[in-house]
Amino acid sequence: MIIEMSRGATKDQVDHVVERAHSFGFEVQLNLGTEKTVVAILGSDTGKVQTDAFAVLPGVQSVTRVMKPYKLASREFHSKPSKINVSGVEIGGQRVVIMAGPCAVESEKQLMETARAVKECGAAIVRGGAFKPRTSPFSFQGLEEDALKMLVKVKSDFDIPVITEVLDIENVELIAKHADILQVGARNMQNFALLKRLSKLRHPILLKRGLSATIAEWLTAADYLLAEGNRRVILCERGVRTFEDSVRFSLDISSIPVIKRFSHLPIIVDPSHAAGHFAYVPSIAKAAIAAGADGLLIEVHPNPQEALIDGLQSLTIPDFKRLMTELRTIAEAVGRVI
Amino acid sequence: MIIEMSRGATKDQVDHVVERAHSFGFEVQLNLGTEKTVVAILGSDTGKVQTDAFAVLPGVQSVTRVMKPYKLASREFHSKPSKINVSGVEIGGQRVVIMAGPCAVESEKQLMETARAVKECGAAIVRGGAFKPRTSPFSFQGLEEDALKMLVKVKSDFDIPVITEVLDIENVELIAKHADILQVGARNMQNFALLKRLSKLRHPILLKRGLSATIAEWLTAADYLLAEGNRRVILCERGVRTFEDSVRFSLDISSIPVIKRFSHLPIIVDPSHAAGHFAYVPSIAKAAIAAGADGLLIEVHPNPQEALIDGLQSLTIPDFKRLMTELRTIAEAVGRVI
Amino acid sequence: MIIEMSRGATKDQVDHVVERAHSFGFEVQLNLGTEKTVVAILGSDTGKVQTDAFAVLPGVQSVTRVMKPYKLASREFHSKPSKINVSGVEIGGQRVVIMAGPCAVESEKQLMETARAVKECGAAIVRGGAFKPRTSPFSFQGLEEDALKMLVKVKSDFDIPVITEVLDIENVELIAKHADILQVGARNMQNFALLKRLSKLRHPILLKRGLSATIAEWLTAADYLLAEGNRRVILCERGVRTFEDSVRFSLDISSIPVIKRFSHLPIIVDPSHAAGHFAYVPSIAKAAIAAGADGLLIEVHPNPQEALIDGLQSLTIPDFKRLMTELRTIAEAVGRVI
Amino acid sequence: MIIEMSRGATKDQVDHVVERAHSFGFEVQLNLGTEKTVVAILGSDTGKVQTDAFAVLPGVQSVTRVMKPYKLASREFHSKPSKINVSGVEIGGQRVVIMAGPCAVESEKQLMETARAVKECGAAIVRGGAFKPRTSPFSFQGLEEDALKMLVKVKSDFDIPVITEVLDIENVELIAKHADILQVGARNMQNFALLKRLSKLRHPILLKRGLSATIAEWLTAADYLLAEGNRRVILCERGVRTFEDSVRFSLDISSIPVIKRFSHLPIIVDPSHAAGHFAYVPSIAKAAIAAGADGLLIEVHPNPQEALIDGLQSLTIPDFKRLMTELRTIAEAVGRVI
Repeated sequence: MIIEMSRGATKDQVDHVVERAHSFGFEVQLNLGTEKTVVAILGSDTGKVQTDAFAVLPGVQSVTRVMKPYKLASREFHSKPSKINVSGVEIGGQRVVIMAGPCAVESEKQLMETARAVKECGAAIVRGGAFKPRTSPFSFQGLEEDALKMLVKVKSDFDIPVITEVLDIENVELIAKHADILQVGARNMQNFALLKRLSKLRHPILLKRGLSATIAEWLTAADYLLAEGNRRVILCERGVRTFEDSVRFSLDISSIPVIKRFSHLPIIVDPSHAAGHFAYVPSIAKAAIAAGADGLLIEVHPNPQEALIDGLQSLTIPDFKRLMTELRTIAEAVGRVI
Repeated sequence: MIIEMSRGATKDQVDHVVERAHSFGFEVQLNLGTEKTVVAILGSDTGKVQTDAFAVLPGVQSVTRVMKPYKLASREFHSKPSKINVSGVEIGGQRVVIMAGPCAVESEKQLMETARAVKECGAAIVRGGAFKPRTSPFSFQGLEEDALKMLVKVKSDFDIPVITEVLDIENVELIAKHADILQVGARNMQNFALLKRLSKLRHPILLKRGLSATIAEWLTAADYLLAEGNRRVILCERGVRTFEDSVRFSLDISSIPVIKRFSHLPIIVDPSHAAGHFAYVPSIAKAAIAAGADGLLIEVHPNPQEALIDGLQSLTIPDFKRLMTELRTIAEAVGRVI
Repeated sequence: MIIEMSRGATKDQVDHVVERAHSFGFEVQLNLGTEKTVVAILGSDTGKVQTDAFAVLPGVQSVTRVMKPYKLASREFHSKPSKINVSGVEIGGQRVVIMAGPCAVESEKQLMETARAVKECGAAIVRGGAFKPRTSPFSFQGLEEDALKMLVKVKSDFDIPVITEVLDIENVELIAKHADILQVGARNMQNFALLKRLSKLRHPILLKRGLSATIAEWLTAADYLLAEGNRRVILCERGVRTFEDSVRFSLDISSIPVIKRFSHLPIIVDPSHAAGHFAYVPSIAKAAIAAGADGLLIEVHPNPQEALIDGLQSLTIPDFKRLMTELRTIAEAVGRVI
Repeated sequence: MIIEMSRGATKDQVDHVVERAHSFGFEVQLNLGTEKTVVAILGSDTGKVQTDAFAVLPGVQSVTRVMKPYKLASREFHSKPSKINVSGVEIGGQRVVIMAGPCAVESEKQLMETARAVKECGAAIVRGGAFKPRTSPFSFQGLEEDALKMLVKVKSDFDIPVITEVLDIENVELIAKHADILQVGARNMQNFALLKRLSKLRHPILLKRGLSATIAEWLTAADYLLAEGNRRVILCERGVRTFEDSVRFSLDISSIPVIKRFSHLPIIVDPSHAAGHFAYVPSIAKAAIAAGADGLLIEVHPNPQEALIDGLQSLTIPDFKRLMTELRTIAEAVGRVI
């Protein structure tokens, strides 16, 4: 951390800053400029201390963090990319992993039909929402436990892992019993009570980026999940909130190379929630693979016009089939397979 | 809702839209323009149906919502401003209600000293965090149940209501037993599991605006709390995420007149979390009252330099005292009292 | 346009709205709901009238635009994609057009060396800044007219078109005499004086997206350029301002399919200015082509460490060569060539 | 500037950074941490050098600026608040200066009627647009030179200074001849050609904040105006672009205390363009004065329903009169007058 003292800061004020740094066990180096004093705080753990601890002291003009606030999710902590095994499917390796299925499980027929189709097209994992976070209390809230049972049937009938969202701490154990990956939604990225509970599991967790979270905040939330020893965390970019109103969220394509540079965790992309419209899903999906994403999370519905949720962003089964062919070509162009 | 059909949409496609509208019980009026057909969907409950239900149909170019997606929180539902009684303190009336206290309860001594001081200065409610949402798992997480007991002592010793944050559904009952107002933090504004649980209580709830929530989304979240008959919901603007980096969050001052126009719920402002720096708190606090806010939530600490959390945004007791004098003058200038 | 009247609006107020619509030559259809009156304003030119013209009338609650505010740039005006000829190079056709070169022309040696190299690697157009918009008045402002002469030498020596930026109306004629494409920078996207002057030319214009412009505003700015009959307008996505601070600007990858859906104009992508760092340029460049961009604008410098401007986002010549090989594979994967 | 070297950076790489710092005339202090080397670059002029000059060097992980990029506009350059004399009216002093008038001059009658009324209500300066920046080429573009003549008539008839916008370098001299303050609009904040031309004048300039400009960028743009010795620069906050769609722009109320802390320039607020709706103007105007703004720029129209531009955000004359009474009370509450 770098502390810039105000012009005219007294020696006592500088000493106070130095003492506080020592109290945290950090070393200090003083840069006595002609106009201002700058104090450099040294140590490998400065990321754990808030900048406020220094900014609040008298005579301090600004505090700048040099070290990142996250640690366990960083490349410096773990220099090689993590490969995560999900019931036999490797995420973060050479294969680009496609997770596909309906936004919400609406019936056994709908789920089984979709699961069969996406598996045939090459999807490696089936998605399906059981508990749904809805912005309005008057909307369909999911089939809940019944949906979980149908997902179990998908696993046994089609021999394919499943992913579903966990909304709150009450259902963690229930969902962990049935799903191969537990998904934390964008609106829960900083639901710390939920993150702490999940950190005690040893299940793969998919952590969606919050809709206005910086990449540093996202990786700090991942640290919560990694803090108790669980190593199987997968990141999912799903678009962020901007002023642009032609899409639901603006997919941050740059997050892929940024995450690859600063973190060892695999990153996949959800083009469906970002776009909010099926017409934009193929372009974004192809872009994500070209940019280096390790997988995709795509919504597919046998009849989007009748979908209870998010039909507009769902691909039909024939559209998904066509897209998979295109995605394979892109994956090969960047030296990967689907 | 207004459905714009594509140029060249067929009669069958238009009929399909009309049928779907009828299936929801809505009436329809067709506008057959020279170039395009526009379908107006009429009915007082169109806000409950997602635009996607129509956007997904073939031949539809765009769907525009005219009615707001929220209902119970709207002025159209309840035309007069709601006044909310919190253990004898009225929020939303002529008095501007100041809630003040430490970000986190750190010790009985710290809490009692602050509570006594802010009450003497004219604060009507004492705030103090027991369970703290922290962006890093390595940071201080609050004194939890011990802090609740200290808050109860504040109530009995100083005869003043207290407000504290509820982080997750597990602690709802515990906190409801001790606090006069339960606060839902910005990161939980769309934690629907938590909102649903809270909606079953009859306690006053303070709902902070999510850090990238639109006002419409905020009022829709308020609908969750109001859906089961609880009427005592207070809104709290605390700044939104923008590109500006000189403050922690950009306080959206316009939200005050917008909320007053479209909702009957009282709105208060938290200048401390928005600013992130004590130096900006007084200006924002004064602006909020001048703009018509019904109250403020301000962080005060007897010794901000030693605060375990957010010391930089906390006012000292003398600074708070000085600010209260200024706030009184502003309140009078807009025809209110503190 | 759809006018929602307030509850309780009088017949006179509705009549007033209707009269105003008629005064613009529009037709009107009334939707007399049980709770509210909704007035639909019909006509193919409603995009030309501001919503304020109705919103300001008494009894009006809201005005919603159904038609887009732009016209000449829209697919409805010109249904087939425009292909733009730039001195023999077609933009918007099957070939993905790579424009490459230094951010600023710094010397004849630097420019010629870069131009030769990028042409050998397959670039179709050479870029080079002569007049530079700098955020600080103390920074290098470009070689100006001398740079234009060097660009002319590139054209004659290497038989390749050149693109350079025009900063203000004073230099429009001078630059138009030398350059094949005139570039309008992001900060000038709504410099209407400049746009109007350029609309009188018949030169190809590249219009960068403003750093906080919506796609609708961008296409409306394109309407300025198209208004006098110039048809050769090329759009360039270069990232928008968001809260994310790990990149200079967040490239809006979704703008590619959105533009393709609503406009006939070709769209290229500038990964260099978005990323702000050479390490992210390849991922974004590949993503752009996969998403359907018609070209790229990339900064290349023979020695980025000595660049006077934006060295950090410039590729070295060997890095550019390597990237071109990868881009070719991606282009083929989406059925195009470079 | 603080340079963080990568883990494992070589001694040669560190030496390279040090040499570059010396080449700019800066001093250097090395912090040899156990894991990483951190290089502190010292000197009062480091703000003039781009961080890229170091970030581009091999072995560098990050570069963090401690000093601000602007200089002449800063409090460190000029520690006392600047008071600016505009034809006898002082801006930045004890008086809160109200500038009011129509968005665009539409006719002599409209302008004279408004000017007379706002002066009677206590406005100190009359505003009126002669050249209008319009997002659509099909909209009314202003009365141009005729409007300037009408503004001159206002000055002589009512003995009050006038402010009008300058859109491009071609009209700088013309407008400077007639207006007391030249206004640079938000979309021109980084039109550097225009800023440079204006910097050669000795007229008061009002610099509006760009709609997505950070405060640091705004003050750096002010440096352009101050660079040639003109000292009379006034800042104007007019709202920034965010995701919130209930207002046209989100007024950044915090910019007032931030500017007061870091700059000596006066700051006024334009509530009309931020709100986009007359109903929100009074709340924002009152908030601005309470927060410490030195003035307001308010749109007033004798008949907003017939205004050619921005009628929705204009106050009627009776509404303006009522607001002025309220503003006076607020101004007094913060120790100022109107």
